Amino acid sequence: MAVYTHLSADDISALIAWYDVGDLISAKGIAEGVSNSNWLIETTGSSGVPSRFILTIYEERTKLSDLPFFLSLLDHLSSKNGPVPRTIHDREGQAFRMVEGKAAALIEFLPGVSIDIPHHDQAVSVGAAVGWIHDAAKDFGGARENDLGPAKWRELLGKCDRQSLARIDAALPDLLARKMDEIEDGWPTDLPRSIVHADLFPDNVLMLGTQVTGLIDFYFACTDFAAYDLAVTHAAWSFGPDGSNFNRAIGQAIITGYEQARQLSRSERDALPILAQGAAMRFIATRAYDWIHTPADALVTRKDPMDFVRRLDYYGTAGQTAFQPR
Amino acid sequence: MAVYTHLSADDISALIAWYDVGDLISAKGIAEGVSNSNWLIETTGSSGVPSRFILTIYEERTKLSDLPFFLSLLDHLSSKNGPVPRTIHDREGQAFRMVEGKAAALIEFLPGVSIDIPHHDQAVSVGAAVGWIHDAAKDFGGARENDLGPAKWRELLGKCDRQSLARIDAALPDLLARKMDEIEDGWPTDLPRSIVHADLFPDNVLMLGTQVTGLIDFYFACTDFAAYDLAVTHAAWSFGPDGSNFNRAIGQAIITGYEQARQLSRSERDALPILAQGAAMRFIATRAYDWIHTPADALVTRKDPMDFVRRLDYYGTAGQTAFQPR
Repeated sequence: MAVYTHLSADDISALIAWYDVGDLISAKGIAEGVSNSNWLIETTGSSGVPSRFILTIYEERTKLSDLPFFLSLLDHLSSKNGPVPRTIHDREGQAFRMVEGKAAALIEFLPGVSIDIPHHDQAVSVGAAVGWIHDAAKDFGGARENDLGPAKWRELLGKCDRQSLARIDAALPDLLARKMDEIEDGWPTDLPRSIVHADLFPDNVLMLGTQVTGLIDFYFACTDFAAYDLAVTHAAWSFGPDGSNFNRAIGQAIITGYEQARQLSRSERDALPILAQGAAMRFIATRAYDWIHTPADALVTRKDPMDFVRRLDYYGTAGQTAFQPR
Repeated sequence: MAVYTHLSADDISALIAWYDVGDLISAKGIAEGVSNSNWLIETTGSSGVPSRFILTIYEERTKLSDLPFFLSLLDHLSSKNGPVPRTIHDREGQAFRMVEGKAAALIEFLPGVSIDIPHHDQAVSVGAAVGWIHDAAKDFGGARENDLGPAKWRELLGKCDRQSLARIDAALPDLLARKMDEIEDGWPTDLPRSIVHADLFPDNVLMLGTQVTGLIDFYFACTDFAAYDLAVTHAAWSFGPDGSNFNRAIGQAIITGYEQARQLSRSERDALPILAQGAAMRFIATRAYDWIHTPADALVTRKDPMDFVRRLDYYGTAGQTAFQPR
C-alpha cells in the first residue's frame, strides 16, 4: 500500500515511449497492492483516444524470473474475455522492461471498486470468478510451483521464535505447532490441480454492482489444488476483518458461484476443512513472520496474524459444517 | 503522501450520491498532498459521460473553519478560466460534506504531471501562473490571515530545543536565532498584498509540455505580500532537491514569467532577498519542528530541514545577485 520507488514524470514518459500508447497526460502514484509500486497513468492513446493503464514497478518480493509466468497468465486469461487486465507489450514485444534495475510493466486499467463487505449476489459472482479462472487456465501453457505451500509455512514459522510468537498471543506457539502437524498430516495429495490465483482477497477483485469487472494482482498465482484456491477465497471473504463473525451464507454463496463454473468432486468437498485450515495457516505464517521481522519504524503497516488464527480456529472447530448450507 | 482515512467503496458511493455526478465506477487511493487523504475517482457522470474527480478527506492539519475560504477560492479562480480545479458542490449547494467526523470535498480532476526538474520555458510558465493567481484573485471577496508568517516561524523554532536542533546540524541553533532576528528586522511592511498560494512546489503544479494545466493544493493559501509568493516559488523551483545547485537561469525564468502577468514594483524587487530568506525560514521552521516532534516510527516521511537551510544560506550570501540575469 505505498509507492516505494520514485519515478519522475520524465522517467515515466521515457518508459512509455517504448510502447505504442501515445504521450503521458497524467500519472498518480496509487495505494494498491502490498509489495509493488503502482501508478495510474493516462496517455493520449495509440489511436488518439486517451487510455489508462496501471504502471507497476516490481519491488523485491516479486521475483524477476516469475514475471514471464505472471504476465503471460494475464494475457492468456484476458484473451478468454474474462475480467483480467491484459499486459501491454512494448514495440519489441516485451511484456516488461527494466527501469533503474527494477522490472516495470504496463497493465490495462479496469473499472470497478473493491468491496469491503459483500452481499450474497456479489459473493456468488466472486466464487464464479474463481471457477472461471480455473476453467480458463486449463489450456494455459505455463506452470509455477507454489512456493508458499505447507513446507514454506513450516519454514516461516520456524523462523518465528517461541518468545516472539508468545508475545503476539500466549497460546500461539503450541497452537501453531500442533495445527501445523495436523495440517501437514491431513494435506491432500491427489486433488485436481489448476492454475490458481491463491490470494483473491476483496482488494484484488474489482466490481460494479454484482458484476466482477477486474481480477488483479496475480503475483502469487501458481499451480496448486483448485479447491485450495476456493478455500483461500472462502477464508478471505466469509469473515469480519478480524477473522471473527463467520458468515455462512456468504461462504455458501462463494461455493455456489464456484460450482456454476466448475463442479467440485466429492473428494474436493471432503478436503475443504483441511484446505481452509491450510489457507488460514498460509496467512498466519507470512503475517507472523512479517510481524516479528518488520522493524517497528518501517513504512509498511504490519497485518495482525491473529485475524487468521481466528479463522484457523473456526475451520478446525466447525469442520464440514462451515461449508454446508445453513 | 498517504491515505490516512479508510473509506470503503460503499462509503464513497454513499458520499457521491449527494452530488449530481452519477454512480461510482472506480476509486483509487492516491499518494498526493502531504496532509490530507485523496482518491482519484471516476463516476458515470451527470450526463452519461464518465467523469473523474479528486475526493479529498481533510485530516487534522486543515482547519474546518478555513475550508470555505479554500474551496471558494478554487471556484473563483477556475471561473476565470485558469488552470485551477473547481469544487463540485452537492445538490444542496454545499462545497464540502462531513464523513465520519471529517470534511470531504469533491474536486475537479485536471490532467498533467508534476515536473521534477523544469526547463526554461516551463519555469516561465510557472512564474506566469503565480502572477495569474495574483491578478485573478484581485476581485475575490475572501481573505485569510497567513498563520504561517514570521511570528509563527519564531514560535515553531522556539518549540525546537537547542539540543535537538544541534543534533540536526551543530551550527543550526545559533544560525537560526541570528537569521530569524535579521529576517524579522528586515521584513517589509508595505508591499502590495494579494491572495497567495504560498506553497507552489513542483508537486502542486501539473504540466503538459510547457503548459501549466493544474495549480492544486491551495490549503496554505492566504492574504500576504504578492512578492512573498513569488519568493516561495523561486525557492521551491530554482535549486536541486537538497537546496544546493542554485540554477539562476530557472530563477530568472520564473521572475520573467511572473512579470508577464504582473509587473513587480521597485520596492518588491528590492525586497526579494529578504522575502526569499523568509520563504526558506518558513520551511525550515515547519520541517525542523516536524523533524523533532514526529515519532521515528510514524508513517509520515520527515523532510530534511537542511534542504532549506542551504537555500537560506544561498539567499543570505547572494542578496540581489540571486534575482539578476546571469
